[in-house]
Order: sequence, then C-alpha cells, then structure tokens
Amino acid sequence: MKKRNAFYAQSGGVTAVINASAAGVIETARKNAGKIGKVYAGRNGIIGALTEDLIDTSRESDAAITALKHTPAGAFGSCRYKLKGLEENRAQYERLIEVFRAHDIGYFFYNGGGDSADTCLKVSQLSEKLGYPLQAIHVPKTVDNDLPITDVCPGFGSVAKYIAVSTREASFDVASMAKTSTKVFVLEVMGRHAGWIAAAGGLASDKKHPIPVVILFPEVTFDREKFLAKVKANVEQHGYCTVVVSEGVKGPDGKFLSDQGLRDAFGHAQLGGVAPVIASLVKEELKLKYHWAVADYLQRAARHIASKTDVEQAYALGRAAVQLALKGHNAVMPTVVRLSNRPYKWKIGEAALADVANREKMMPAEFITPDGFGITEACRKYLLPLIAGEAYPPYVDGLPDYVRLKNVAVKKRLKTEFKV
Amino acid sequence: MKKRNAFYAQSGGVTAVINASAAGVIETARKNAGKIGKVYAGRNGIIGALTEDLIDTSRESDAAITALKHTPAGAFGSCRYKLKGLEENRAQYERLIEVFRAHDIGYFFYNGGGDSADTCLKVSQLSEKLGYPLQAIHVPKTVDNDLPITDVCPGFGSVAKYIAVSTREASFDVASMAKTSTKVFVLEVMGRHAGWIAAAGGLASDKKHPIPVVILFPEVTFDREKFLAKVKANVEQHGYCTVVVSEGVKGPDGKFLSDQGLRDAFGHAQLGGVAPVIASLVKEELKLKYHWAVADYLQRAARHIASKTDVEQAYALGRAAVQLALKGHNAVMPTVVRLSNRPYKWKIGEAALADVANREKMMPAEFITPDGFGITEACRKYLLPLIAGEAYPPYVDGLPDYVRLKNVAVKKRLKTEFKV
Repeated sequence: MKKRNAFYAQSGGVTAVINASAAGVIETARKNAGKIGKVYAGRNGIIGALTEDLIDTSRESDAAITALKHTPAGAFGSCRYKLKGLEENRAQYERLIEVFRAHDIGYFFYNGGGDSADTCLKVSQLSEKLGYPLQAIHVPKTVDNDLPITDVCPGFGSVAKYIAVSTREASFDVASMAKTSTKVFVLEVMGRHAGWIAAAGGLASDKKHPIPVVILFPEVTFDREKFLAKVKANVEQHGYCTVVVSEGVKGPDGKFLSDQGLRDAFGHAQLGGVAPVIASLVKEELKLKYHWAVADYLQRAARHIASKTDVEQAYALGRAAVQLALKGHNAVMPTVVRLSNRPYKWKIGEAALADVANREKMMPAEFITPDGFGITEACRKYLLPLIAGEAYPPYVDGLPDYVRLKNVAVKKRLKTEFKV
Repeated sequence: MKKRNAFYAQSGGVTAVINASAAGVIETARKNAGKIGKVYAGRNGIIGALTEDLIDTSRESDAAITALKHTPAGAFGSCRYKLKGLEENRAQYERLIEVFRAHDIGYFFYNGGGDSADTCLKVSQLSEKLGYPLQAIHVPKTVDNDLPITDVCPGFGSVAKYIAVSTREASFDVASMAKTSTKVFVLEVMGRHAGWIAAAGGLASDKKHPIPVVILFPEVTFDREKFLAKVKANVEQHGYCTVVVSEGVKGPDGKFLSDQGLRDAFGHAQLGGVAPVIASLVKEELKLKYHWAVADYLQRAARHIASKTDVEQAYALGRAAVQLALKGHNAVMPTVVRLSNRPYKWKIGEAALADVANREKMMPAEFITPDGFGITEACRKYLLPLIAGEAYPPYVDGLPDYVRLKNVAVKKRLKTEFKV
C-alpha cells in the first residue's frame, strides 16, 4: 500500500503544552516513515488547510521538533474558526478534499477542544459522505478541562499548577503585609463555563501551608452577602483572605459579574474584568485594603512552570493519535484513563468522537464544598496528580529558550484560491 | 566585651528574596555566636519593636532558616510604617530604646527600601543623640530598584525575570492566535515612579526570539497618537503587538492613566488598572482584538521563577550587614558593586545611609530608546545579568514547599504598652 501524508493542525486557544502533542504526532510519524509520508501542518489551524497554506514539518530538524516539548503556544499558529455542517457549507468540505487530494493527505490530526472535536468529527465523515478516503483523529487540548470521557485535557494541568503556585505565593505576600496594608487579594482566572481552573486555587492551601482561600466558581451563583460574610470571617480569623474568582461568575440575574457597564469620566465604555468588581465590593462594603490581579494569557502560556504530568500526557496523546491512525481508526480521540490516585497511574484509552463533540464536562457537585466557596477532598484527590512534577525548559541568558520553527511553506499545487 | 543581641525587621512591600536576606543575617549571626547573642525579629517590622512583639529566631532550626532562602514574602511580617523625625515624635525613639535596652539589643538590621533607609538612618542616631549604644545597618530591598549607589536592589532581579519570562510566553501565545483572534496583548506591571520593571519586558525579545514589544514607562509622558501609531505599525508588520505598561504611566495632564474615574452602570466608582485603559484605547481607535493582564502581587511573590543572581545577592547583603556590624560600622548599607557585565562579576561595597535615604534612582535617559517605547543596548547589558540563573524551590505534591516559621514570641519584659 502506498504511504500517504498526514495533516496536523492546532485549533482554538493555545496552551503551555499543545506543542508537546505536536511533537508526539510528528516524532511518531517520523518513526513510522515506512507507513506515513510527510506531516504537513496547517498554518493557523484549519485555515491553512482551506487556503492550501501548508507547512512542511519535514524541513524541521529532530532537535527542533523535540524542543516543541518545552515550548508554549501554537508553533504553527492556531485559529478560532468552526466549520459549519456539511449541509450548510458543502463548499468548505469540497475544498478540504481538493487540498488533501492535491497533497495526498490520508490522515487528519486535529488538536483542540470541544468545538474542534466537532470539526474533526465532520471531517471524519468526508470519507463516507464524499468518497474521499481519510482517517480523522482528534488530539484533546483545552485549559478549560471540559472535554468528556478523558480523565483530563492536556493544557489544564499546567494552568492548574500555575494558579495553585501563584495563589500560594501571593497569599504568602498578603499574609506578611496584612498588619498595616493589604488584607484581601483577588486573583481572576480563566474558565468561562467550568470552574476547573478556579478550583486549582484551592490547592494552594494544605496542612503545611494553611491559607484562607475563597473560590468563586461559575457553577455557583454569586451571593453577595454570603461572600462578604465569608471574607470578613477569614480576615478576622487569619488577618487576611485570598479570593480566586473565575471570569465566568454570574450574579442572580444571570449576567456575568464582569459585565458592569463601566464608563470613564467622559461616559466612554471601558473594559472590565471581574477581579476589580470583587475588589470594589470588598473596599466599599468591608472597608478593607485590597489588591487584585488578572492572570489572563500568562496562566495558559506559562510553560516555565508547566506540570510534568501534563507535558507527558500531551506528548503521549499526540503519539497515540498516530498509533490509532496506523491501526486504521477513524473519528476517534485518544484519552487519558486514570487507574489510581496515589501513586497516580494512567493509561491511554480511546473515545468515539461522536461521544465527545459538543459535550461539556462541568465540575461535579461533590467537588465543591457545601458553602460553595471551596474544594472538597474528592476534588483535591482528582487535581493533585495533574500538577505533579516540574518540567523546566532550558534557559539561555536567564530566559527560557523556546523554539521558533522555520515553518517552510509547501509549494501550492492548486490554482484556485479559497476565501475564509 | 559582653555580647549583645540583634534586632532584624522587614519593612515595606515584600519580595521573592527578602527572606534570603533574613537567612543571610541570621546564619551569619549564628556563625558568630561568640560575638552576637540572639537575633530577635520584629513581628510586622518596626511595629514589633515599638510594641515589644519580638520573635525569637533562635527557636528556629538551621533547616528552617536555610529554607528562608527559597521562601517568598516576609517570614516575620512586614509593615508600611514610617518613623517620624526625632524632633516630631521623640516618644517613638524613646520607646525603641526602652525595648532595645530591655532585651539588650546592640545591633539593628533593617531590611527595606528608600523609606526604610530613612528610618534606619534615624535609628542610627539614637546612639549619638539619646546616648543608647546601637549600630544600625540597612539591608537593601525593593522590587522598584530605585535605591541609589547599589548596582541593584534585591527583589528587583526576580521581578524582572518574572516579567521578561511572562512577556515572552504571552507573546508566543498572541503570535499563534493573531490570525483570527487577539492581536494586542497588554500587561500591566509595577513601578509607580521608576520604569525598571517595565524595562524588563523588553528582555523578552532578542535575536532568536524577536517580539514586537511596546513599553510604556512612567518616565515618558503618554502620547496617545504616537502610541497608537506604534501599535498599528507593529500589527501590520508582525501580525500582533505586546504592550508592557507601568502602573505609573501619566498623561500630558500629569494624572495617572489608571485614574479614569470609572463608574459602573449605577454610577458607583470602580477600581481600575491601567491595562484595561490601554486595551480600551486599542479597541476603540484601532478596532483590534485585545487581551490584558495585571500581574500585581504575582510578580513580586514569584519565588518559583526567582533569579539565582538575585537570591545570591539578597543573601550576601544580609551576611554583609552582620559583618559590617561586627566591624563596628553604624549608619551604613552594604551594596552591590558591578565589576563587569559579561561575565557578570560583582562584589559587596558599602554606602553611608545619609547618601541613600530619600533618594530615588530613576531610569537613565540612555536606557530608553529615542521613540520612548523600548530599551537600548545599554539597558539590556545592565539588566541581563540580574535575571541570570534559576534557583528553583523544592516541590512537594506539585507545589513549592515554602517554610512557615514557628515565630515564637520573646517574653515581654516591659510593663508598659505602646500604641502605634
């Protein structure tokens, strides 16, 4: 059987370890050079496929591909672009087939979250519905940790580690200043729909490092009075309080707390986060000194403090995707299956994409304490293994030496252009 | 000669390495146990001295004191509390003498920034003006890097490393998203008066990792049109732009940009940072997608990514303070003296406190590029050695294992209380 080429693309928000999955795909394909041809990466995700803007990864050295394991963000560019259904936009799918056929692509590896799993599922149907032979495998990735079936999504463990470490460090800071200065510190974290990342703030506190952390989950409707009472009690008991607030927290009216309709002195609309809203509340109602931080991209790009477990899983899932393809699978996603908590043991499993696409995994109710402001022991047992281990990048001149690929374009073979 | 006890206190905003200076003081005092008695730490800085709330550091194990080298924030508590002049509040100084005499304290080590150097200078005059024999030595510390004479202030190198690393990481993130999503990323950093910390954002970009970084320094009056043109040009050329903005940036009216008089939909005042102000401008005027982050305490507490150089200097200055005391010095501060850039060589020097107190070291004009948005090669040469080397803390269960001291109180010997 003639060997065919592979297409790989990164999709949606990038993470500290998505490039480790890319390394897993490319290195495993290289090891199976007898069965798989070249790996072409889409420049800026699926847009690269639609516009025939392909990157020839065979032009990168083995060292450069290995360096992807310690390099954050999307080395080939990512995109936020969701394919429509086959019926709604047949032209997109016909274009994909045209490009894939021109470059003899028989394997489609798509590295992304829930929306991307849906795209990957649609592409997997090209084979059956449009008669083009293709195997589509989804490689899971999302800091939000909201994909079903898999024990965890690569990217999440490293964000969780960053948030847990940062919360512990900032809490030490506030504790030492609280006598005459800041008493309440507010940290805003990502997670518009699910509170997984916010939950990681709870790990900052343990028996040896007890810290009064109040978590505001998107799963729990914000209760102003209850929140203020909790913060007040913590400050009275411990001298200070740390608040970890998810960007997705909503009030009883169902609106995001961050959506306060802020205006400057001239009446112009201003962008706000939820951290300053919470800080204002603490200041106005409790008259306590505050500081606030918004981690934003820093949290998901922080390869310098990535979880070793996360890096290993991201790589293993990339490798497994190629292995599944070589076994002839289509429309599947390799998953992490947890075997035990302590010691943490896991293996690679697989899920049908039809069971993954467009389904969100929320925090289970038993992971949130009855008062709605903390994590339970069950949650701690789930989270701790995911942040275990450090996987430091190499440093040059005091800075992490992240790789930038050459990203050489594959010569176009089609005469037609495609507008995205 | 009978050996006398020492007093040590932490003052002002804490840092990732101020405890390393504490370790330098305490370990060196322990090694000179024939000449120095116990080291008593002030609980919450100078307030601990005024209220006779002293911590007996001899109750801490050698291992606990060594662990201070890898633990951020102030292990004994810090404070924002400036002593008045001797003439204005003689009672404060008489109280200090009363407490020091009761505990036979002959050495005063004060670990802080500019205001604290002033306090230390005043305390050093107790000997001469009030007839109480005391040697006062200042141990420099401030993330703002604005103390004169010393090449650098401990605490700064680690913040600089954090900002440089975070700027590089977030820029990699934005670069990979820019095709369809965020094109401008804004990071707000500390430094109300001096742009040293903002300057560190410029280190993110180098020959191997070229990144379009625009820096907004407090030393440069914000020019709206020039700024927008610069960001626009960067996005056109590179596809994206990273902005590092100091919290202290002011407009032509002399007001902080962060002070926008924000109101929510109900007209209530809201707290704002400068990052959302800059992001709003980019959105309104350039119609570009943005993200913004505010690092706040995360940057100065981030012991996990501390500069090894910074940790070593912080420790060496604590040690040097004790050595200066043993040599009979008073009213001095040990300093870092730079001997060469590459390789970076430095030694310990000393400065008279009268030359240090109440003087701010601003960024030299030749460290800022002519357009006002970047750092020069001279600045890079100055900064790079300060972020060199990593000094990772130990980890347990995926989290840094920071020490919490027992902080056992010394039995009070005075019957009188003192109100601060």
